[in-house]
Amino acid sequence: MTSIAYLGPRGTFTEEALLSMPVSQGADLRALPSANTAVDAVRTGEVDYALVAIENSIEGTVTGTLDQLAVGEPLVITDEVVIRVRFALLVRPGTPLSGVRRVATHSVAAAQCRGWIAANLPDADVVPEASNTAGAEAVAAGTYDAVIAPSVAAEVYGLEILADDVGDNDEAWTRFVLLSRPSAVPAPTGADKTTLFLYMREDHPGALLEILTEFSVRGVNLTRIESRPTRKALGDYFFSVDCEGHVADARVGEALMGLHRICASVRFLGSYPRHDGKEPLLRSGVTDVDFAAARAWLDAVRGSGPTA
Amino acid sequence: MTSIAYLGPRGTFTEEALLSMPVSQGADLRALPSANTAVDAVRTGEVDYALVAIENSIEGTVTGTLDQLAVGEPLVITDEVVIRVRFALLVRPGTPLSGVRRVATHSVAAAQCRGWIAANLPDADVVPEASNTAGAEAVAAGTYDAVIAPSVAAEVYGLEILADDVGDNDEAWTRFVLLSRPSAVPAPTGADKTTLFLYMREDHPGALLEILTEFSVRGVNLTRIESRPTRKALGDYFFSVDCEGHVADARVGEALMGLHRICASVRFLGSYPRHDGKEPLLRSGVTDVDFAAARAWLDAVRGSGPTA
Amino acid sequence: MTSIAYLGPRGTFTEEALLSMPVSQGADLRALPSANTAVDAVRTGEVDYALVAIENSIEGTVTGTLDQLAVGEPLVITDEVVIRVRFALLVRPGTPLSGVRRVATHSVAAAQCRGWIAANLPDADVVPEASNTAGAEAVAAGTYDAVIAPSVAAEVYGLEILADDVGDNDEAWTRFVLLSRPSAVPAPTGADKTTLFLYMREDHPGALLEILTEFSVRGVNLTRIESRPTRKALGDYFFSVDCEGHVADARVGEALMGLHRICASVRFLGSYPRHDGKEPLLRSGVTDVDFAAARAWLDAVRGSGPTA
Amino acid sequence: MTSIAYLGPRGTFTEEALLSMPVSQGADLRALPSANTAVDAVRTGEVDYALVAIENSIEGTVTGTLDQLAVGEPLVITDEVVIRVRFALLVRPGTPLSGVRRVATHSVAAAQCRGWIAANLPDADVVPEASNTAGAEAVAAGTYDAVIAPSVAAEVYGLEILADDVGDNDEAWTRFVLLSRPSAVPAPTGADKTTLFLYMREDHPGALLEILTEFSVRGVNLTRIESRPTRKALGDYFFSVDCEGHVADARVGEALMGLHRICASVRFLGSYPRHDGKEPLLRSGVTDVDFAAARAWLDAVRGSGPTA
Repeated sequence: MTSIAYLGPRGTFTEEALLSMPVSQGADLRALPSANTAVDAVRTGEVDYALVAIENSIEGTVTGTLDQLAVGEPLVITDEVVIRVRFALLVRPGTPLSGVRRVATHSVAAAQCRGWIAANLPDADVVPEASNTAGAEAVAAGTYDAVIAPSVAAEVYGLEILADDVGDNDEAWTRFVLLSRPSAVPAPTGADKTTLFLYMREDHPGALLEILTEFSVRGVNLTRIESRPTRKALGDYFFSVDCEGHVADARVGEALMGLHRICASVRFLGSYPRHDGKEPLLRSGVTDVDFAAARAWLDAVRGSGPTA
Repeated sequence: MTSIAYLGPRGTFTEEALLSMPVSQGADLRALPSANTAVDAVRTGEVDYALVAIENSIEGTVTGTLDQLAVGEPLVITDEVVIRVRFALLVRPGTPLSGVRRVATHSVAAAQCRGWIAANLPDADVVPEASNTAGAEAVAAGTYDAVIAPSVAAEVYGLEILADDVGDNDEAWTRFVLLSRPSAVPAPTGADKTTLFLYMREDHPGALLEILTEFSVRGVNLTRIESRPTRKALGDYFFSVDCEGHVADARVGEALMGLHRICASVRFLGSYPRHDGKEPLLRSGVTDVDFAAARAWLDAVRGSGPTA
Repeated sequence: MTSIAYLGPRGTFTEEALLSMPVSQGADLRALPSANTAVDAVRTGEVDYALVAIENSIEGTVTGTLDQLAVGEPLVITDEVVIRVRFALLVRPGTPLSGVRRVATHSVAAAQCRGWIAANLPDADVVPEASNTAGAEAVAAGTYDAVIAPSVAAEVYGLEILADDVGDNDEAWTRFVLLSRPSAVPAPTGADKTTLFLYMREDHPGALLEILTEFSVRGVNLTRIESRPTRKALGDYFFSVDCEGHVADARVGEALMGLHRICASVRFLGSYPRHDGKEPLLRSGVTDVDFAAARAWLDAVRGSGPTA
Repeated sequence: MTSIAYLGPRGTFTEEALLSMPVSQGADLRALPSANTAVDAVRTGEVDYALVAIENSIEGTVTGTLDQLAVGEPLVITDEVVIRVRFALLVRPGTPLSGVRRVATHSVAAAQCRGWIAANLPDADVVPEASNTAGAEAVAAGTYDAVIAPSVAAEVYGLEILADDVGDNDEAWTRFVLLSRPSAVPAPTGADKTTLFLYMREDHPGALLEILTEFSVRGVNLTRIESRPTRKALGDYFFSVDCEGHVADARVGEALMGLHRICASVRFLGSYPRHDGKEPLLRSGVTDVDFAAARAWLDAVRGSGPTA
């Protein structure tokens, strides 16, 4: 049976994200205490997959997760899922809004819902908790009157949704990736993404421009970029990037070879279907057909000289 | 008297960073429950400054802080400080290592010290807490046997340092910035940094390359870049960047004007002295003297025609 | 009275071009034996202007003219004119086609009319002459039976047009420029061109890319570029370029300052109205209004800190 | 026997250049009346090779030669030679300098020697002739007193060298290329050049920058570039370029494929040994070994996922 680790306990956004993925059906889902331990569980072979938040963290430190993938045994991303983040005010059944004096929240949920809390619970104490679910558990135990948490936590902890969708920003979302040990890359779907870590040879001005040129000259668009300090020395950076396309695409393959030649090291973190299914808008000259035609022309030129 | 808000309570890395800055001497230092509330306190005028972590978070959500600066009333960075992050194992006085069964940690401290914990406390329960200091308080109260926390927390909470420097990575550090309401930009020191948020006109391939070219053509190097989703729509990004140099430098000024022309919006977050005092290595042709000479030449050409 | 030198004698394309320019009306037009001597005549002050072919030579060595402008006393281009090149077969009055056995041509005219000659005069001897008009004069003197020359030469030398428009290429044209000693640059018309010579600091790979980036980052398009060997050493090059726009345009001015900073030397050869009156298609952000807005924004930022 | 056409008659710089090439030894050398007819002779198969001047013309219209290669049956360059251009003042035996009243010169020779003529023959009439050799022939026939011509013409026409090296510029040179019908490309020597004509898809701003980026991203340096009007319409250009390296080099091959994808058409004009034997200074990451290593890495990534 497929086994998948995730940041538990039950009732988190990560669980919500995981349940939305076909791979979770009939799988052995294991709630672990942190994203780090979930990543470790894949590395050691204890589980087949781990689902971890990677962008726009609501639960846990996404930056830390990325950094964890940058060193140690290589892992690859085989799928991604993006879910809308939606907070509710959860209470023990029967508690009225007027009875809410102490509200537990994870710090990010607090930030996300500040406007609603200021307007609706101006006099309540807002108490930080280590996670949304630790807060929910504490409400169930009577330590607090309410918790700002994913609405799915209500059922898990026997709470009631007193107000739903209390976030200040309707468009909040989190992106999760499914990690596995290196194996066959998922087949291209035509709407894929590729994730890379790029380490520079030295800190020279213009290095980033060179990297971007390797992508752009082959018509490969980036969807995310972050300079991240290496763990070696202050001021020593690598780049964490997502680009459109699949390593099997000719344009992505050639870009990767170009990066391999100019970087101290390139860590391939996987090619996988985009969650939004959006196909790249390709400029002329960068399809697989164009690459094959150019290759055929070059072979002719090399063989016999000129061509028009 | 100058008033400065920071993420409290006492005993955090932020306090350590703040105390290392001359501006804190004789100032009214106010420990607030979150970076967000510290930022708010500057915006409302309640305090003059706030010190918040901005890169490589150890305490709190750095990404969230950046996002908070991206919208709402403009704030500017007037100084920065970088401190080495150093964790210790703190216990109630007299507790031996063998007596440590339950260890509280903030999730990032846990990640940072995993190797040491696995080697020295293989059988201990590691329990997540909302912050380093919440853990220290709980140890003092007897809830846990020990906490992984900054060593400065020992004095604040009446604990003892059982083991110092238990982080797995000797080079961990956090960068903090001092925020104020817009006012005069600090004078250039020759070793400055400038922070910007850059919003694209539309999501068009090559936008990032265009942005970087505006910097590089004037010899301005970046020291950090991050694409960040706007709060408007999934897939809509802005870029958060730090570059070398001061807005008063001719090359930085011209680059900013170029960015202003190609971006939907540029948010200037301040020019301030670099913590490391490192002066930029300028390529030929980009000093203020070079810019002035080029201007004089252009004026001559415009006035009278040709020159050699 | 305005005096203008040109490559004579009468009956050349240069004269045709000159007569099409308003400046020639009522002026003292002086036919000189070579483009070089015409250029010299302006330099010494003997005449006010010289009209010389500069691109797609039909008469004389255009490359040589360019090179002549690259060194010595600076001259500037104040206007340009492009004329269609149209050759005719000229004979002494009464000569039938069947009587044409020896045809004089300047080498370029010969190249331009090869197809017609092969089809209509397959058995004729084609004899090179130093210029179109030397050939016409020789026909008048009875040395040859016919000459391939501009049809205007017929009247000048008392010849008859036996066949008109005998060039193989309907679209042949020559571009001429009007040179003067440095003086006030002609006012911008909205459809202007600027000509420059750019000397590199050293022969380093990527120098050309840097130059082009200085133009493109300000939205300035090139209409002509040529690498030209300097007269100093084999392998030492400079670039001769025409760009759209006028030195008084903000985008062109800033590009020129950028070039001044990265080049060993920039020689400004003038801004002048385009012959075709075609206005540049500007991308967003590069008009004078955009530059002024960016400057105002920068001034605000420098003065007081942040802005949105 | 190998047959080679060149611009005659005997005594030209082209002959001097041809005799310096090993291929001319024992070959059937055919002096033709123009570079055009020499090119035609290769196209029709009448000769195996043609040697024509291609850069920095002293004899004949180099630009015209390039244009001739741009259309019609493809030809390729298989070798190049560069010779120093050195003019002499030739007279009939016994003529003293004081006896020189009329001097014949080709217009370019006149330009090249203006300083010397002004200083030494201030009162002489300088008469243009169609070529250096036509002038020499006319001196022999008594039409003129002297000719400015290559010193090798003295022997051919029975003249005497009255003054040698009368050019104003010690470093004048001409580059010639050996043309043949398409056949096997000469083997790489490590110090090669490749010549291309690049036709744009449309006249869009930035096209040239895109072209140069295809070269530079693979570390291929240009040694010559010229925008040339196509024969179709005013304002429609193509680029004529020489780059370092051989089509068999991995970096040149990939650059050519990139150009093939973005251009309307690429005409390959040959890869051939550089006359100066200068090997390219390659930046790191662009040797054949680097390309092979990148390919092996990509194959591994595509096969099995991640790598460090």
